[in-house]
Amino acid sequence: MKYSSLILTLPVWMETFIERFTFPLPTVEARMRFVIAMALENIRRKTGGPFAAALFDAASGDLIAPGVNRVVPLNCSLAHAEMMALGLAQQHLDTFNLGAQGCPEVELVTSAEPCAMCSGALPWSGIRKLVFGATDADARAIGFDEGAKMTTWVDALEQRGIAVTAEVCRKEAGEVLREYAQRHGVIYNGRVEEKSPNRGDKPEGSCRT
Amino acid sequence: MKYSSLILTLPVWMETFIERFTFPLPTVEARMRFVIAMALENIRRKTGGPFAAALFDAASGDLIAPGVNRVVPLNCSLAHAEMMALGLAQQHLDTFNLGAQGCPEVELVTSAEPCAMCSGALPWSGIRKLVFGATDADARAIGFDEGAKMTTWVDALEQRGIAVTAEVCRKEAGEVLREYAQRHGVIYNGRVEEKSPNRGDKPEGSCRT
Repeated sequence: MKYSSLILTLPVWMETFIERFTFPLPTVEARMRFVIAMALENIRRKTGGPFAAALFDAASGDLIAPGVNRVVPLNCSLAHAEMMALGLAQQHLDTFNLGAQGCPEVELVTSAEPCAMCSGALPWSGIRKLVFGATDADARAIGFDEGAKMTTWVDALEQRGIAVTAEVCRKEAGEVLREYAQRHGVIYNGRVEEKSPNRGDKPEGSCRT
Repeated sequence: MKYSSLILTLPVWMETFIERFTFPLPTVEARMRFVIAMALENIRRKTGGPFAAALFDAASGDLIAPGVNRVVPLNCSLAHAEMMALGLAQQHLDTFNLGAQGCPEVELVTSAEPCAMCSGALPWSGIRKLVFGATDADARAIGFDEGAKMTTWVDALEQRGIAVTAEVCRKEAGEVLREYAQRHGVIYNGRVEEKSPNRGDKPEGSCRT
């Protein structure tokens, strides 16, 4: 059938990149620095947008799964860094629920505040902790529309058993976003009505039909 | 590498199932009946949850991509019907933006109101129309937690250029949910704190670690 499988892959550099780090990473700052380094590698290698995320065993700091934004190279608007890390971890651990009995307590560390889609994905995923770096305002400043999120999205996650830690290494995380903008990376909001500062003549994708 | 690809597949019955219908489907009701029939097939074949969706060329009614919920069989909480249809369509059409120049105006028809994740995914996807059947209340009535959505989520989508049509064939769409509950289908919210009516002793998944 012409559309039977959706295949979302990590960049080929990921395996050797991970080998440069020593796990477990004991602190949230160390985990965030690893994630920020992945985001930077992703834009320098031109393998996706300026966002990265990783799932860790919250207690030990062992890496469960990495993720980077793959929207443009994979032609898939779902391929945000957080979604890649969540999906890869779940399939690797053979569970749709990372909060299931037998799972370690799982922490998602992401270089930027999750968008409306990704924050909506978190309660389904079973993770217990969210740590983010750059803020929604930092992402919007380079032209990304993070979607219509509730102003109380942190409370909503906490009510569903997910503890949120904001703005860890925010400055360094924001620098990756700014470097991406300086490199004229694609700002890939899927709306022609878009009125964001960095649109200009940026491509919005094309359609094969 | 142990986690390099996330692979999301449609059930094997999909191809022959689609051959039973004649496309294009001219009305939203006809499109919704096709989608509801897919959701019913998905639960009767035990290949996923009681949700289906499809992308159509809004003007002609041609099928662009089908999707069914695959969370439990694929061990992936992201594999909601809407996400499957969006991702398959984008990869098939070689675009991360279904609203890009050259794309037909794309309509997502889904058997139930999109959850927080899926409604957050819509603006990124480039679709222009959303049609849903059963409501959030219908899904919650059998125990699914649709997540923390803004009460103004329809307005938020419309502000981003996505027209929303609610409750098309709601009764028939809701019947699939109720049949799933009667068959004791897995209600797979990923939270142990869950206080939903139908939890009981439903499995919450397990973890291979």
